[in-house]
Amino acid sequence: MRVVLVAPRNPLNIGAAARAMSNFGFAGLRLVNAYDVAYREARSAVRAGHVLEGAQQFGSVAEAVADCALVVGTTSAGPRELQHPIRRLEYGGKLIRKRLASQPVALLFGSEKFGLSNEDMAHCHWLMRVPTRDEHGSMNLGQAVAVCLYELTRRPEAVLARPETKKRPAASSLEELTRLLLDVLARSGYVHERVESSTELKIRRLVRRMDLSAHDAEIWLGMLRQIIWKLDSR
Amino acid sequence: MRVVLVAPRNPLNIGAAARAMSNFGFAGLRLVNAYDVAYREARSAVRAGHVLEGAQQFGSVAEAVADCALVVGTTSAGPRELQHPIRRLEYGGKLIRKRLASQPVALLFGSEKFGLSNEDMAHCHWLMRVPTRDEHGSMNLGQAVAVCLYELTRRPEAVLARPETKKRPAASSLEELTRLLLDVLARSGYVHERVESSTELKIRRLVRRMDLSAHDAEIWLGMLRQIIWKLDSR
Repeated sequence: MRVVLVAPRNPLNIGAAARAMSNFGFAGLRLVNAYDVAYREARSAVRAGHVLEGAQQFGSVAEAVADCALVVGTTSAGPRELQHPIRRLEYGGKLIRKRLASQPVALLFGSEKFGLSNEDMAHCHWLMRVPTRDEHGSMNLGQAVAVCLYELTRRPEAVLARPETKKRPAASSLEELTRLLLDVLARSGYVHERVESSTELKIRRLVRRMDLSAHDAEIWLGMLRQIIWKLDSR
Repeated sequence: MRVVLVAPRNPLNIGAAARAMSNFGFAGLRLVNAYDVAYREARSAVRAGHVLEGAQQFGSVAEAVADCALVVGTTSAGPRELQHPIRRLEYGGKLIRKRLASQPVALLFGSEKFGLSNEDMAHCHWLMRVPTRDEHGSMNLGQAVAVCLYELTRRPEAVLARPETKKRPAASSLEELTRLLLDVLARSGYVHERVESSTELKIRRLVRRMDLSAHDAEIWLGMLRQIIWKLDSR
């Protein structure tokens, strides 16, 4: 993967692009006609030194993408009439990932002010758009790079993944918790000592709905025992 | 949706967060203990004025999330031992979208330097992590906001969407193109005038593989006719 910044002007943006590349595990940064000053100042970007040091500089888009089998330009699809097919990031990202499995791909980002020129776009096989609002489509350069690289490394199957499962308490712990809570409520006068069975059921369900971890169930048992001790000692 | 920045220090980051919110169509920016200077300087952020003007300031996380039914903290899951379940953005984003359909949700981002404190996290139902590299997990604040909001507005079904279909040429156009190309090749001595049928088949398939739009097929027809005229006039 080659991330190609065309005519970037702001060192903060070059640094931010490099940082996002480091965050998401990309290394091939290429700069086309970057202001020398901008490039040199960017080199202080937070923990992205290896990306910036490995960055290559080029005098034209043609040279920067020469070894790539797929060249994709990013655009906010503003007022200009575009002569290229435009794909949303979700779909374009899938196509790029597929191609990346076998051949290098270039992803082009234009300058902060003007985006990619028609000349730059003519080197692209197609264009890709981050699905921003029509009324405010233009993104900050560093943010656009971050969002695109996130999509490229995003794992669709993670949508279904459960988080690391927390250990659940045994039913016997929940039942003990229920009994202790009923005891506290009875001693406090919340329910009468001879608990009505409907109230008992309500409390039992309430405890199950708490969806406690084994660890938190232990904490609750400790708290209830202490409360009972205090109520007894009065 | 409330985007809550806790103790942000850099006006550029507040501005960048506001810009990403505008890009992806969010409005509820909340600041907790923002440096006053930072907040005032941020107000010049590119085209995100309406988000910054509507921003609310709070003195504590508790106040900033008081009206929210779900409070999610973001973290790079660094060295600290976290006491909360951590969900990847792909999965956490799904849960947030679901809840947003009926009730307000707060998404917390910590300060640039330290992230969310343990005190801040204690207000959260769970934590969410942008799937960055373990070796460089910590993202720029503005970029982290952009990536999270992108995931929240991302349309999963767009992965399958074909781009706007380009108009395709009729088979007759492709056939004319094939004949003209064979004509040019025969006149140029690339193939003999009495074209071998195997070559004809190869060229016919080649033309179909070009996957031309109707518009580009017209351009090719014009170019080939011109070449034939030139070859004839020699």
